[in-house]
Amino acid sequence: MKLDFSVAVHSLLYLDAHRPNKVASRELAQSLHLNPVMIRNILSVLHKQGYLIGTVGKNGGYQLEKLLGDINLGDLYDLTIPPSLSYARFITGPSKNDEQVNKSAIAANISETLTDLFTVADRQYRAYYHRYTMADLKEDLHHHGTFLAKEAGL
Amino acid sequence: MKLDFSVAVHSLLYLDAHRPNKVASRELAQSLHLNPVMIRNILSVLHKQGYLIGTVGKNGGYQLEKLLGDINLGDLYDLTIPPSLSYARFITGPSKNDEQVNKSAIAANISETLTDLFTVADRQYRAYYHRYTMADLKEDLHHHGTFLAKEAGL
Repeated sequence: MKLDFSVAVHSLLYLDAHRPNKVASRELAQSLHLNPVMIRNILSVLHKQGYLIGTVGKNGGYQLEKLLGDINLGDLYDLTIPPSLSYARFITGPSKNDEQVNKSAIAANISETLTDLFTVADRQYRAYYHRYTMADLKEDLHHHGTFLAKEAGL
Repeated sequence: MKLDFSVAVHSLLYLDAHRPNKVASRELAQSLHLNPVMIRNILSVLHKQGYLIGTVGKNGGYQLEKLLGDINLGDLYDLTIPPSLSYARFITGPSKNDEQVNKSAIAANISETLTDLFTVADRQYRAYYHRYTMADLKEDLHHHGTFLAKEAGL
């Protein structure tokens, strides 16, 4: 879900701003206006991938391991919103298992064509995020308009 | 919804294959394995935009007005899946109307930054579809792999 990406971005910015402190999921939850369980689920993915150090217990919390400039936005997008393995629910016509004698040439072939089209479009979409790091995002936070300004050069 | 785009594509290919016949929504519904009401709702949008001729009554039905090569896939995508006006539900932090004294600089600014990022990414995504027409899609239907082959050159 796209919100997971936003939660990851917001959390990483928050941890960066609070270096070298440990930040509890409860504190992040207050800043993000979200439930601590949701925060913990998303941060556990980032933790497994080595973005964060996590300490459990009374004085525990999260600390950012990487520099913002070393965190690629596309990697973060792929991690929090994995690519679809199947576009079946977005494609018309009979399912693969339907044994229809009179299946038309269009109905028989449209699934493969639309899957290719959607797959390449999605890869193009993700390639956009891969152009930037969290440091670019932090720059836009302080000087809005950098992503819009760079669009012309794409 | 992405399915609306698939329905539009499938319907236009079907009407093209059945020129110059009139095709009833019931016949399209059988080919697409969908409800005729859904088909009619989507085709009414295409009809208003001049893609189709529609005749009502006992011997009525749809006929394709344009050539496939004159139907841009990006136009069709924008028509059936209009761009989001707001990414509010994908963005963390307090809502605009929250009057919080201690709103952090991150929480106060992340909405504008993520909105810009998502907006430009979505425009890049749509630009991909705008490269092709329905004639390109029909070509892939007969010779699968053309969209994948063209990806290397993007």
